[in-house]
Amino acid sequence: MPIDLRSDTVTRPTPAMLEAMFRAQVGDDVFGEDPTVNQLEAMAARLFGMEAALYCPSGTMSNQIAIKCHTQPGDEVIAERNAHVYIYEGGGIAFNSGSSVRALEGDRGRITAEQVSLAINPDDVHRPRTSLVTLENTCNRGGGSCYDFDEMKKIRQVCSDNHLKLHLDGARLFNALVATGKPAREYGVLFDSISVCLNKGLGCPIGSILIGPAAFIRQARRVRKVLGGGMRQAGFMAASGLYALEHHIDRLAEDHAHARQIAAALEKKDFVHSVMPVETNIIIFETGDTVDCAKGLSQELRQKGIFCIAIGGNQIRMVTHLDVTPEMVGEVIAVIEQL
Amino acid sequence: MPIDLRSDTVTRPTPAMLEAMFRAQVGDDVFGEDPTVNQLEAMAARLFGMEAALYCPSGTMSNQIAIKCHTQPGDEVIAERNAHVYIYEGGGIAFNSGSSVRALEGDRGRITAEQVSLAINPDDVHRPRTSLVTLENTCNRGGGSCYDFDEMKKIRQVCSDNHLKLHLDGARLFNALVATGKPAREYGVLFDSISVCLNKGLGCPIGSILIGPAAFIRQARRVRKVLGGGMRQAGFMAASGLYALEHHIDRLAEDHAHARQIAAALEKKDFVHSVMPVETNIIIFETGDTVDCAKGLSQELRQKGIFCIAIGGNQIRMVTHLDVTPEMVGEVIAVIEQL
Amino acid sequence: MPIDLRSDTVTRPTPAMLEAMFRAQVGDDVFGEDPTVNQLEAMAARLFGMEAALYCPSGTMSNQIAIKCHTQPGDEVIAERNAHVYIYEGGGIAFNSGSSVRALEGDRGRITAEQVSLAINPDDVHRPRTSLVTLENTCNRGGGSCYDFDEMKKIRQVCSDNHLKLHLDGARLFNALVATGKPAREYGVLFDSISVCLNKGLGCPIGSILIGPAAFIRQARRVRKVLGGGMRQAGFMAASGLYALEHHIDRLAEDHAHARQIAAALEKKDFVHSVMPVETNIIIFETGDTVDCAKGLSQELRQKGIFCIAIGGNQIRMVTHLDVTPEMVGEVIAVIEQL
Amino acid sequence: MPIDLRSDTVTRPTPAMLEAMFRAQVGDDVFGEDPTVNQLEAMAARLFGMEAALYCPSGTMSNQIAIKCHTQPGDEVIAERNAHVYIYEGGGIAFNSGSSVRALEGDRGRITAEQVSLAINPDDVHRPRTSLVTLENTCNRGGGSCYDFDEMKKIRQVCSDNHLKLHLDGARLFNALVATGKPAREYGVLFDSISVCLNKGLGCPIGSILIGPAAFIRQARRVRKVLGGGMRQAGFMAASGLYALEHHIDRLAEDHAHARQIAAALEKKDFVHSVMPVETNIIIFETGDTVDCAKGLSQELRQKGIFCIAIGGNQIRMVTHLDVTPEMVGEVIAVIEQL
Repeated sequence: MPIDLRSDTVTRPTPAMLEAMFRAQVGDDVFGEDPTVNQLEAMAARLFGMEAALYCPSGTMSNQIAIKCHTQPGDEVIAERNAHVYIYEGGGIAFNSGSSVRALEGDRGRITAEQVSLAINPDDVHRPRTSLVTLENTCNRGGGSCYDFDEMKKIRQVCSDNHLKLHLDGARLFNALVATGKPAREYGVLFDSISVCLNKGLGCPIGSILIGPAAFIRQARRVRKVLGGGMRQAGFMAASGLYALEHHIDRLAEDHAHARQIAAALEKKDFVHSVMPVETNIIIFETGDTVDCAKGLSQELRQKGIFCIAIGGNQIRMVTHLDVTPEMVGEVIAVIEQL
Repeated sequence: MPIDLRSDTVTRPTPAMLEAMFRAQVGDDVFGEDPTVNQLEAMAARLFGMEAALYCPSGTMSNQIAIKCHTQPGDEVIAERNAHVYIYEGGGIAFNSGSSVRALEGDRGRITAEQVSLAINPDDVHRPRTSLVTLENTCNRGGGSCYDFDEMKKIRQVCSDNHLKLHLDGARLFNALVATGKPAREYGVLFDSISVCLNKGLGCPIGSILIGPAAFIRQARRVRKVLGGGMRQAGFMAASGLYALEHHIDRLAEDHAHARQIAAALEKKDFVHSVMPVETNIIIFETGDTVDCAKGLSQELRQKGIFCIAIGGNQIRMVTHLDVTPEMVGEVIAVIEQL
Repeated sequence: MPIDLRSDTVTRPTPAMLEAMFRAQVGDDVFGEDPTVNQLEAMAARLFGMEAALYCPSGTMSNQIAIKCHTQPGDEVIAERNAHVYIYEGGGIAFNSGSSVRALEGDRGRITAEQVSLAINPDDVHRPRTSLVTLENTCNRGGGSCYDFDEMKKIRQVCSDNHLKLHLDGARLFNALVATGKPAREYGVLFDSISVCLNKGLGCPIGSILIGPAAFIRQARRVRKVLGGGMRQAGFMAASGLYALEHHIDRLAEDHAHARQIAAALEKKDFVHSVMPVETNIIIFETGDTVDCAKGLSQELRQKGIFCIAIGGNQIRMVTHLDVTPEMVGEVIAVIEQL
Repeated sequence: MPIDLRSDTVTRPTPAMLEAMFRAQVGDDVFGEDPTVNQLEAMAARLFGMEAALYCPSGTMSNQIAIKCHTQPGDEVIAERNAHVYIYEGGGIAFNSGSSVRALEGDRGRITAEQVSLAINPDDVHRPRTSLVTLENTCNRGGGSCYDFDEMKKIRQVCSDNHLKLHLDGARLFNALVATGKPAREYGVLFDSISVCLNKGLGCPIGSILIGPAAFIRQARRVRKVLGGGMRQAGFMAASGLYALEHHIDRLAEDHAHARQIAAALEKKDFVHSVMPVETNIIIFETGDTVDCAKGLSQELRQKGIFCIAIGGNQIRMVTHLDVTPEMVGEVIAVIEQL
């Protein structure tokens, strides 16, 4: 039985979550009548102190809807150059919103208020109109790095000063909340919209929630429909979200501890050039100098029953999650030590 | 307990379907590793004798993806003026595909090969390039009417002669198959792509399948991703589809018989001006001449525990489905008789 | 030397217009420094009593920019089914604006306030959001028909009541002004934006002007840039527009008289089934019952030195304009009489 | 009388060009009947040894049409991060084509085959499909730098190996041809499409030409129409292009000599930190360290009758062109020396 560290998306529901799913009360959500979906949306909105929320089939859809609602075709979105919304959503910012991306080089995925400020286009017909900033917290390609909350406040200020909207891709926001101890409601104050993923660290099979003001969510519901994201008896899936918000947030600390343990083992090895600081549940390390050395190592690990992903030529990513037990972490460390 | 005849989308899974869902083997479908999703896609493709299939969260997404893959921005799509893809998908043909619609007036939703032929634009830069014809079978707004298969063959010929693609919105195709006795594979020969809905007559909570050639489905998978329709452990939902394809097709004949019984009761009433011929599970009838008379009647029925929908000023739609039992049909008829 | 009645777009500048062009002061209009363009825009705005105007390379661009500025992707535009914006602009409403079209069947191109009222979609996520009505005056495919001003006022009221914008495609608006004696400023009060064409009846080689409120025109300038319609020393062309607004409006009455004379000759002929009422400079008549009879007749006329266009199977269109002299009209009539 | 070095777009036609314009034979180009436009398109195609060409109102439109024809929505275009198509065309790649941009950091605007090769996305639904590379030669923001032809050949090879199209934004291509002595036909062999601007160094009031294979230009003609770029009697403007291709290419060498002279004067001054190597008609130099020092200097120069543009905080751009005489260059140098 392999240990799957490729992503925290691979988790399967626990028996208790599964039971919650199949006892769910459902209705036709396109008519607004699925009580479980309604309950989940209300809970998510309350958690962040925002007015409303919308259940979506995927984090990509939540993000894409938010970007669509905040922009006009011809606008420009400021994002970090490795942001998920820019590089992993199929070119959706251009496809769905007709908007350009100004990609900034951040520090492990995090951009600063000063960078944002300098990247805003002047009011000139030659230049796309800058209208939105998106942040990602934690930053996937930054090795699960967490934003400094004060820097985000400064970015909020720059946005307010320049009539820009501010969206948070919170695919792994709960990891950041647990790692930094910041309450969710403080994020609700800062952002114009927040997407959170239920099927990553929280362990749901599918689902994401987009959270924001009531008028924004009404518009988002329209966009969800036109993208084909309106689902009927979605309550079975939404029930897993309710369960996860109640039972799976605090336990993310275990995943973070596991990640630190694996990182410590990696740091002792010669073939590992460097390990990004581990702040949450993602470990990214560099290995060797030859082209595709990461691919070779990931294949070697796969033969020993450990799945991970080579990202770029010499980087490997490992992700801890709900289905990775302390025993598995011990096994991973043992394998690393023998490499 | 009300009897809900608003749509066949309101069904809830049967206990047996729910159990099948509960026991589903799942994996990460974005990595192509969900065995239940893979099995459902293979079964659907095989059923229609086509190469491949793609599981989607909704029928709207299946249709929108197909239209996107068959067109370029600036193209024109020929459809009936009340086609679901045109009037009920949020303007998605323009939004997602940048394509125009040439809306033809059909006979209860059905257009003819001759109409299609006359609606093809000449090759002229002023005119959008006609590139796609979409049919809907059964036709929702046509009262569940079924296409004559020979007419569809003629439309196929017009399409082939003019380098047009032909897509079938088969949201209720299984109703047409049961009503006409035509095998699914003959449809697979005729169309470039077919979408079928699992959450209408088939009784699944969510889900739709897009079916077509392998290269088309590869492209469709890309579009599904950019629209945000890629889901992770979708197998729980897909399992309901597998169950439905095995157990819920033949029973659609019951829904059709129920619909005919209700229609017969309606036809006897003075306040009913006309009832569209009932071919499958949809009853559409006209009532009165005053503005909003349909709304008044639907509210009266609601007070008596029967939910239906006023479509347009003086039309009412009722839909029979999996959750409508013979007893309920009797009750509906009794209420109608007393009106 | 053939007599070209295919369109009023075929005119060539008069010597006086050409001299005005030749002497134009020019500058870089992308920097806002072309004095002739600025003067033309100011004159057009003043003429309609509106705040601002924008010079564009074509009427298609003026219309497409207006529609873009008045809509969001996913919206729906109400237009007559033969409106130029819908059938002759390459599918631009969907391509440029991602918007759908609700095509209404009008009376010689003219729709009514009641039709508009009934075509507005309810607020429902399934339906595109209706946001714009476009009228065309005169109506090209309606045989140069003029709107009744009171009906336009009623349409304005419906738009205001339902938060819809109202755009006028005034490609041949000056013909309507001359034919009805209505002052341009009354149109400025009624519409949110107006496009007028300089290269039709007014006889300029190229150019169109979009007119509206200042904020709208600022946004329109952005859209013009992204479509590639920003031109540098456009003043040479704009000078023809200035000349035409001063000298070529009143003389449209001659074109109308010419059109009536030709129509009268046509009405006497057996092979002409019917002639649309001639209100301005367009004559559309029906000929024969056989397929392509119009094509045959247009070819016969071409051999006799008269160019016209077969539109549809049995309709022929003739257009009078600046380059059609009284002598030519006499010649056309003589040819018709001998057919 | 100020000396305008802001851009080579500010030129006014010479008397001889103006005379050629107003003697032009014209016709309705939307019907394909403008002989001057046809002649210009044929001459441009022949010059580059390609099959066909299309006259457009602006370089932005030529580029945007080319990108549209080479891509699908959801694709990704590789360009240098300061490329005109990316930063100065209003976000048109996303707006018109729904495509993303992968912006590479080049050497004075020039990217390498190796960079291109590394920027191609793998075939993965998460990533936009890379389908097009655009180069700019000369590079505006690179100070008029010229590409090494061998590097372009290598980029062509990378494109061919990876099924990518290669477009050249040749807004100032004639400057590169004159500076490097490379014949135009060698460019025709290398690129899938080329846009050239007539209203920059060539001195026309407006206009640009898109050049490529016949099938590509047919498609481009459609896109030009839907963007509103189809013009009627465009021959007056096209005539300036014909004149310029015959008389204004070789003289670009003078502009280049003028630019070098001004640059030499600048290099002697203390307040000038560095001057980019001058290869053609653009001079970009850095001045001072304080924020907005460039703005201050440009204002000082403006008071002395010399117009230039501050680009970024401490860079100034000067451009020589047809309207800049040797006397003016002397005057500019005198002013610089006295600063």
